[in-house]
Amino acid sequence: MFIALSRLSIPEDRAPELVAAFRSRLRQVDEADGFIDIQVWQSERSPGELTMVNRWRDRDAFKAYMKSAAHRESHARIDPDLGEAITLERFEQLHTYEVVAE
Amino acid sequence: MFIALSRLSIPEDRAPELVAAFRSRLRQVDEADGFIDIQVWQSERSPGELTMVNRWRDRDAFKAYMKSAAHRESHARIDPDLGEAITLERFEQLHTYEVVAE
Repeated sequence: MFIALSRLSIPEDRAPELVAAFRSRLRQVDEADGFIDIQVWQSERSPGELTMVNRWRDRDAFKAYMKSAAHRESHARIDPDLGEAITLERFEQLHTYEVVAE
Repeated sequence: MFIALSRLSIPEDRAPELVAAFRSRLRQVDEADGFIDIQVWQSERSPGELTMVNRWRDRDAFKAYMKSAAHRESHARIDPDLGEAITLERFEQLHTYEVVAE
């Protein structure tokens, strides 16, 4: 199993807005070959830190989705003002992992 | 759902040993009330970075397990030499999250 993880920081008072945006996300990715699931984690200590965790069958399935029209469309839907708040605060690069034990 | 995450860094050549130790872990936690699952993620970019992800029903279930004899026993089984390699390299504190969207 392959994990793609993005960490976002946003001013704490705007976190609920970002969570709402995730909840209303397009469900197109659910149909992608090799997609398992997505979760969004909110840090207990720093509620402005949100971690998006994507689980995939393998790296190739994830890469194929990243190049797809469905992925571009999901990003195009982010409210520009909210996107700017994320960018100003911090957008950490993507981290990728292989699941090695469970 | 509640997430407890620990990040460990270990010299890259000892990572397989740590992964093997995780795989042979005691299965007692599987019986704990509110336990969902554990995964160990190995970073693609830095293979000496391992992330242990514990998923629980809620924070109370996790806290109850942390106080239990089963938890103490699982830590007591770690090979002292391996434990020292982890400590010397880096043991980040526990991070906890609430799952807010999926």
